[in-house]
Amino acid sequence: MQQLKEKKIPVMEIFGPTVQGEGMVIGQKTMFIRTAGCDYSCAWCDSSFTWDGSAKDEIRQLTVNEIVEELHQTGDDSFSHVTISGGNPALLRHMGGLVDALHEQEITVALETQGSIWQDWFLEIDDLTLSPKPPSSMMKPNMAILDEIMDRLKVRHVSTYSLKVVIFDEKDLDFAQELHERYPGIPFYIQTGNDQVHEENDKRLVSDLISRYEWLIDRVMERPVLNRVRVLPQLHTYVWGNKRGV
Amino acid sequence: MQQLKEKKIPVMEIFGPTVQGEGMVIGQKTMFIRTAGCDYSCAWCDSSFTWDGSAKDEIRQLTVNEIVEELHQTGDDSFSHVTISGGNPALLRHMGGLVDALHEQEITVALETQGSIWQDWFLEIDDLTLSPKPPSSMMKPNMAILDEIMDRLKVRHVSTYSLKVVIFDEKDLDFAQELHERYPGIPFYIQTGNDQVHEENDKRLVSDLISRYEWLIDRVMERPVLNRVRVLPQLHTYVWGNKRGV
Ligand code: SF4
Ligand code: SF4
Repeated sequence: MQQLKEKKIPVMEIFGPTVQGEGMVIGQKTMFIRTAGCDYSCAWCDSSFTWDGSAKDEIRQLTVNEIVEELHQTGDDSFSHVTISGGNPALLRHMGGLVDALHEQEITVALETQGSIWQDWFLEIDDLTLSPKPPSSMMKPNMAILDEIMDRLKVRHVSTYSLKVVIFDEKDLDFAQELHERYPGIPFYIQTGNDQVHEENDKRLVSDLISRYEWLIDRVMERPVLNRVRVLPQLHTYVWGNKRGV
Repeated sequence: MQQLKEKKIPVMEIFGPTVQGEGMVIGQKTMFIRTAGCDYSCAWCDSSFTWDGSAKDEIRQLTVNEIVEELHQTGDDSFSHVTISGGNPALLRHMGGLVDALHEQEITVALETQGSIWQDWFLEIDDLTLSPKPPSSMMKPNMAILDEIMDRLKVRHVSTYSLKVVIFDEKDLDFAQELHERYPGIPFYIQTGNDQVHEENDKRLVSDLISRYEWLIDRVMERPVLNRVRVLPQLHTYVWGNKRGV
């Protein structure tokens, strides 16, 4: 354990408290830790600065203690929930030490990953989102690995993990539907994509994103196979547009 | 059972499938049944047509079978989830027959009520939202009854019920905070109020509602006692404004 806590974690940014804008704990007050590095390079990645080198000077190698300290410096006592995102935080084998340290302080932990790599510490995450990437991302998920992950998670209560797919077009929705049928009974979230991650006019962005959300609702309503899914936008973009760190 | 199913239920409207725009199953594909009648008369009620007489000609007295049939006529096979709202559906002692009939068809059932009346069939609801009204409503919740309801619900898993409070001002937030401290560990949702239920200009409405949501996020972030709550808007108003039946 002590060993794990001395390993360094590549941190891109720590911010909050703010609301989680997506997925299974949408609306939850949370701090964010964004790790650097990804094994994917999605066509529409909205956090490509974590892996494309454009913000490499901002990456800091921090120990678990340093991260926990910075969380408290930034969020004071106004948080009891931390969300770890990336990049792909599942690249980091020793992340378990951070999860343990947060749990020791009665802080619950959410994590999002595309599901390309298994880590034993997935079993400790309170709100685990697996977000396999659809065709529009130009990535090709390894289904054998995803099957293995979903199989290992079966020991957990279904309220502790979920699948989430970002949708840009009908092909993406077909992919989501296949996944939902492949893993029945697992909470399933369908989310609007944002194809204007550089749009700085917030009003234009929001009006466009709401139209996309309405389009997605209509498509999901048509499909009986998707009766049990939940369709959500990225709420934070409605409030803060494409700004980072909010 | 058969007897219960022959009792009539005053139905204001049946519509869907659409997404649930609020609370614990936000984003869920669902059909809506809105019952007529309420024991409250909240200052800002967004469905006052269910109780103020303005739409009394639209109220139909339907049996359970008639309701189930109309759900299928309206929603075809594109739903597996039904939300019962009002008015206050908890006024209806024989609602249990409808809940049973839906469960027999493997349809899950959500229900929202202010928590002014207990009904035994609350124990059968899959997603039960108790939404006590804050001071701005000009109503005064009976805390003894609410205590009793929360006590009786303890036999259920906490993932099946939640508290939700609509917020217009700081006093409402104080009320929400008291409730959250009174019933610790119960999933708690804080929701932006809509004080322009007659605004027909959707763009103006949405921009105003998003500002209110941002205000509410800021207020909740400041309060450590509210670290575990979830702050959400009414998503459907972002998409459809104040339109009824969507
Ligand atoms: S998996 Fe996530 S972080 Fe990695 S490239 Fe895709 S969208 Fe970006
Ligand atoms: S309890 Fe609900 S339906 Fe009844 S008056 Fe208040 S807001 Fe309207």
